[in-house]
Amino acid sequence: MTTCFANPGTSEMHFVAGLDDVPDMRGILCLFEGVATGAADGYARVSGQPAATLLHLGPGLANGWANLHNARRARVPLVNIVGDHATYHAQFNAPLQSDIAPLADALKGWRRSSQHPDEVARDAADAISAAYGPPGQIATLIVPADVSWGEVTSAPEKWPTVVRTALASPDDQLVVQSLNLLRTARSALFVGGSALSREQLALAHRVAQSSGARLIMETFPAIMDRGAGVVSPERLMYLSEFAIAQLQDIDALILIGANEPVGFFAYPDVQSRLVANGCNMVHLAPPGYDTEAALHALVDALAAPVATVADGERVSAPHGELTTQSLAAALAATMPEDLIVADESNTGGVHLYGLSQFSTPHRLMTLTGGSIGFGLPTALGAAVASDQRVLAIEADGSMMYTLQALWTMARESLDVTVVGLSNRSYAILNLERQRVGAVSEGDTSQRMLELDNPTIDLCALASAQGVPSTRATSADQLVTALERSYATPGPMFIEAVLPKGLS
Amino acid sequence: MTTCFANPGTSEMHFVAGLDDVPDMRGILCLFEGVATGAADGYARVSGQPAATLLHLGPGLANGWANLHNARRARVPLVNIVGDHATYHAQFNAPLQSDIAPLADALKGWRRSSQHPDEVARDAADAISAAYGPPGQIATLIVPADVSWGEVTSAPEKWPTVVRTALASPDDQLVVQSLNLLRTARSALFVGGSALSREQLALAHRVAQSSGARLIMETFPAIMDRGAGVVSPERLMYLSEFAIAQLQDIDALILIGANEPVGFFAYPDVQSRLVANGCNMVHLAPPGYDTEAALHALVDALAAPVATVADGERVSAPHGELTTQSLAAALAATMPEDLIVADESNTGGVHLYGLSQFSTPHRLMTLTGGSIGFGLPTALGAAVASDQRVLAIEADGSMMYTLQALWTMARESLDVTVVGLSNRSYAILNLERQRVGAVSEGDTSQRMLELDNPTIDLCALASAQGVPSTRATSADQLVTALERSYATPGPMFIEAVLPKGLS
Repeated sequence: MTTCFANPGTSEMHFVAGLDDVPDMRGILCLFEGVATGAADGYARVSGQPAATLLHLGPGLANGWANLHNARRARVPLVNIVGDHATYHAQFNAPLQSDIAPLADALKGWRRSSQHPDEVARDAADAISAAYGPPGQIATLIVPADVSWGEVTSAPEKWPTVVRTALASPDDQLVVQSLNLLRTARSALFVGGSALSREQLALAHRVAQSSGARLIMETFPAIMDRGAGVVSPERLMYLSEFAIAQLQDIDALILIGANEPVGFFAYPDVQSRLVANGCNMVHLAPPGYDTEAALHALVDALAAPVATVADGERVSAPHGELTTQSLAAALAATMPEDLIVADESNTGGVHLYGLSQFSTPHRLMTLTGGSIGFGLPTALGAAVASDQRVLAIEADGSMMYTLQALWTMARESLDVTVVGLSNRSYAILNLERQRVGAVSEGDTSQRMLELDNPTIDLCALASAQGVPSTRATSADQLVTALERSYATPGPMFIEAVLPKGLS
Repeated sequence: MTTCFANPGTSEMHFVAGLDDVPDMRGILCLFEGVATGAADGYARVSGQPAATLLHLGPGLANGWANLHNARRARVPLVNIVGDHATYHAQFNAPLQSDIAPLADALKGWRRSSQHPDEVARDAADAISAAYGPPGQIATLIVPADVSWGEVTSAPEKWPTVVRTALASPDDQLVVQSLNLLRTARSALFVGGSALSREQLALAHRVAQSSGARLIMETFPAIMDRGAGVVSPERLMYLSEFAIAQLQDIDALILIGANEPVGFFAYPDVQSRLVANGCNMVHLAPPGYDTEAALHALVDALAAPVATVADGERVSAPHGELTTQSLAAALAATMPEDLIVADESNTGGVHLYGLSQFSTPHRLMTLTGGSIGFGLPTALGAAVASDQRVLAIEADGSMMYTLQALWTMARESLDVTVVGLSNRSYAILNLERQRVGAVSEGDTSQRMLELDNPTIDLCALASAQGVPSTRATSADQLVTALERSYATPGPMFIEAVLPKGLS
């Protein structure tokens, strides 16, 4: 582990001092814990490796919790180091005394508290092992202050090592069952997680082409390959009503790297399960299983030939008014090679997936856990993990959650382009409240969903934190700004001014 | 309950729609949950009444948790309304499925989840009752989406009522014991919580004067009266070493409205308990007890006459360089009548308590739980609760945690003056790391405590969110800016540029 996204306090000062002795560990200061945890998530999505966070007691872990929730749903390996009061100090109920363990346990991962300096090396190795899974998970190591500052009394003869458990192999009987269903029923492959790499998507495509099955992907992947030459699966839609319609003719669903798709929220008179009643589901390779082996097994059994990947023209750079359509076209038209995209565009980015099918090959990260404020931090972490340019597409409402990430992008001179979408509204909530039947004609409720009065100057928020910024009010300006940013080292912020609300 | 600080999502849309039907409930949109919870804390400190927060599932509660921790330590009444997935949807482990209960329980307050629309009125009344305590606490009511949108099948004959439990009376025997100690030993009254009102401080002063006891107050009060004509107790120091020295000659400590003082953190070779070994402590009126009755009992038993309150000159407006000294003088010299101060100045405001003794009478709120990011939200809530001008004194590092509060100040046209202290450093941590012995000479560790490269433009962060801003680089400019702000309705932001780091 070579990277630590940190927002330390008094209890973590020995860790900070230790950075001077361990030059291989890159410490990156974040001005809010939600930035640190989201950055560790992005780092892991791109590299497959865990980064550490360094957090200050219960409030520090709580501040980082929402993005840890997203990381948990992305099933990435991640290690929290949480400082705590000295072991003997806890009994005194000092102002910062807080229950760290239940906060960590609510993330459904691994948790331990070191009780002696002699245990720290072992515990750290165990934390990293646990984080790897598979599937990846959140490991939280609590280090009381006196464990940090105490002396090691008995150094281990050899340093503890990190154990990486291999991916589980798919069950042979489930392979047979999958093949039978693929051959006979109206079936679909439902792919997610690690099955969304370029190579595995190609395998899945061969299976689908050979068997006549549909190929559908999960709605919110942690990271996927996308663009020209990459198989573009049908994406399960976000709105339950549409997703149910999408799946209604499917009698058999073979799940690879994904769990059963369910409604993001419940709605009155809409079912939570999205598959049709009686649909036969085979969990061939759940998260933590070897999705590549599962796909190979199907390819081999079907003797599925290499299948042509759909080809098409990259969309052209748009002109004229800036709308959600021209926004997506501008983004899709200008992507440089190997771009990594963190998409927290919400309603503003609704056309991006469709229009990016034939863009320059890139990787796409999405909001896995539904907890907004993931985009900027995840982009930051991705840029630390990679030499590639990162693009964050960030809705204004979501951006306001973790805008402190911009400062760290500037400080670390990271190659991140941020497109901030200004629609001055929680537009998604204007949609959602109709769907749950909470319709009201009053101005009071409407005002709770609007981000104007005052309008937020997104560019100024970026510039104030050291990120150069520019504003695009037309598609042409956006294209120019994107191209300039991709050609310029370091971060850049582009405010894309969209029509207000849903558009 | 008439105020709700909200950051809603899909699960809370019916609550939002309900605001149109209940004009007595003021809904205030906050762009991050930590702002909403801190605002509810400030509201309660000033008014004594609970406000509601409206939060979105586990991540929403987690984002608000740090300021709830501060509110818990301030012992204010506060009611969280947390939306959850529909009851029948929870089993499907949808992306936002999260364990809300353990997050709420870690706040050591009250928690319930409504299971049917018929229960909501009762549960809400119970939540408010629980919040009042005494002492005040965090009550969290979880409302699943289907409970929100379902129909009430059996309306109660009469609406459930909120029960307010009376304060507990101090024990007569403890009064006698306290009197004996006050008469014989080297004793001190240690006051906190509700005992810090102007009236109760005057009673405590009479007891101290009459018995020869010292009068000491807790380090970080939730809210206290301060200024000319108000008794100014000796304040227990933050640094354990100094606090231990302060208390070393005291054989008997009579605690009123406060718990035993303990070290904020533990440090190598410094004890956690601050009182001298063998010091006799009488917990005469712990939090939740009637501190005024306890003080009256002592006054009566001692026949303590009315005691003169120390008088002195208000400090003059300073000139010249802006230092922590002239900063405090500028603040103390210009306070308008009945100002409410939220002090999150950390190292920058070290001289304020001393210099404000003879300022125009005001109220002072401090960081009770040690979780930074409390100042701006608490000031926002205080301004909603009161017609008085509010002053937030905000260190740059702390400000970056919850800077979204500025937008709500602008939207609601609140009379808040924010003085943002720019010292481009986590200066407190430069001090703390020496105290814990984590001294290191390396640049890497030092860089983790510095907020420059890039320097943050605090004024621009405020202006971008609709708050007019100005920069003061001298004491004279700061005085002028403060006076102008106090004379101008609405919020204003003043960046006070201090020497870098500790000064």
